[in-house]
Amino acid sequence: MKKPSLHTALSPALLHLYDVNNTIVVVIDVLRATSTIATALYNGAKEIIPVDSVQRCIQLGKELECITAGERDGQIAPGLQYGNSSFEYPREFIEGKTLVLTTTNGTKLLHMALAKGATEIITGAFLNLSAVCEHLIQMKKNVILACSGWKDRVNIEDTMLAGAVVSIVEEHFSINCDSSRIAETLYKKARKDMYEFMKTNDASHYHRLTNFGLEKDIRHCLTHDLANVLPEYVNGKLVVQKKK
Amino acid sequence: MKKPSLHTALSPALLHLYDVNNTIVVVIDVLRATSTIATALYNGAKEIIPVDSVQRCIQLGKELECITAGERDGQIAPGLQYGNSSFEYPREFIEGKTLVLTTTNGTKLLHMALAKGATEIITGAFLNLSAVCEHLIQMKKNVILACSGWKDRVNIEDTMLAGAVVSIVEEHFSINCDSSRIAETLYKKARKDMYEFMKTNDASHYHRLTNFGLEKDIRHCLTHDLANVLPEYVNGKLVVQKKK
Repeated sequence: MKKPSLHTALSPALLHLYDVNNTIVVVIDVLRATSTIATALYNGAKEIIPVDSVQRCIQLGKELECITAGERDGQIAPGLQYGNSSFEYPREFIEGKTLVLTTTNGTKLLHMALAKGATEIITGAFLNLSAVCEHLIQMKKNVILACSGWKDRVNIEDTMLAGAVVSIVEEHFSINCDSSRIAETLYKKARKDMYEFMKTNDASHYHRLTNFGLEKDIRHCLTHDLANVLPEYVNGKLVVQKKK
Repeated sequence: MKKPSLHTALSPALLHLYDVNNTIVVVIDVLRATSTIATALYNGAKEIIPVDSVQRCIQLGKELECITAGERDGQIAPGLQYGNSSFEYPREFIEGKTLVLTTTNGTKLLHMALAKGATEIITGAFLNLSAVCEHLIQMKKNVILACSGWKDRVNIEDTMLAGAVVSIVEEHFSINCDSSRIAETLYKKARKDMYEFMKTNDASHYHRLTNFGLEKDIRHCLTHDLANVLPEYVNGKLVVQKKK
């Protein structure tokens, strides 16, 4: 039987090069949207509604009387209640609640994947790496790993996550995609200590977040399977996918 | 003194993210446009005129009574005389002549860099790696390494070349660019045997060209400094840059 294909789009500005029809798109925004999404859902959030603007986030928060959260340039956006750190969403706070979330890069890509007609849209982070990989292997469908990057620029952490997925699932897919191999090479080089790798390689996001005192956040987001759920984007909301 | 900046655009579709004003743009198309350009100029070609279509190539060839060459999808384009292999341009054939060249990816990027107003546009390949690096170090200007890729998809060989440049010049530049670090990591992993690396990583271009029997071409294009000139794009023509 022919294996399904796997491609990696290293930036949202490259997603249009890939055919998303009949494809599972994995949206990746390691620092920190998809890490926060995994954590909040793992800790029992009912659902997360990703929106593309701070204004829409405030408006929807009022309408639904729910928690609003989001960052712009790595900090809590004015008018919103919470930021984009996993540590803000422990079970005792988030369980059973709806979160309206806007982020700089990740939300935009979710909307792009939806507009392009992906069959299924899930989100990936190191925190839920195993859940994502097990699902992809099980589904036997074509896959696109869609990295959010930073304002359309390729970044190290999302590329590492794509590479981690490639290194785990590669036997099950036909991978004729240089970007996937570049990502895999990066991950294999960095995996012993990804935090140290980002630091020594002057990763742009490392600098951006450490300037805000977020070293602990970065280390957390680079840890495997601490929030091992499978978030799926359905009817405009991110929810934990029921076993298929 | 503040060091100049260096960025890498891994695909032509990402070039718009970088400011090319007051910047040297290095156009990279290792397999095979910028390798052919280096070789033809090294072997004494008077000038190379890159054009963006086969039709324009044929027309200009007639007007100037010169050699026309180019590929589409890795093979000699119908209506043109020569292909895109370095081996087609030995000194006894090309010396003193004008070559009109059209290629799938490289030419397009030269025109993009020009349209965006780069201060200086040069071309880079492994065949002229040292000439490019020495020039960049000497000039002390901002640099963008612009990879041609394949139909806007990121490819391994152009990324490796960008990484090779980064690894050689990095002390002289301020590099806050994740793409440059990813490229450098790839190059350092692959450099012992780049041909073998492309083969074992299923590089798309490796497959495309080996299907045409071009293994020898690939190996040649991955060799350092065999045609160590500095091609500059001036007034619509590629010529060997005079020492500045």
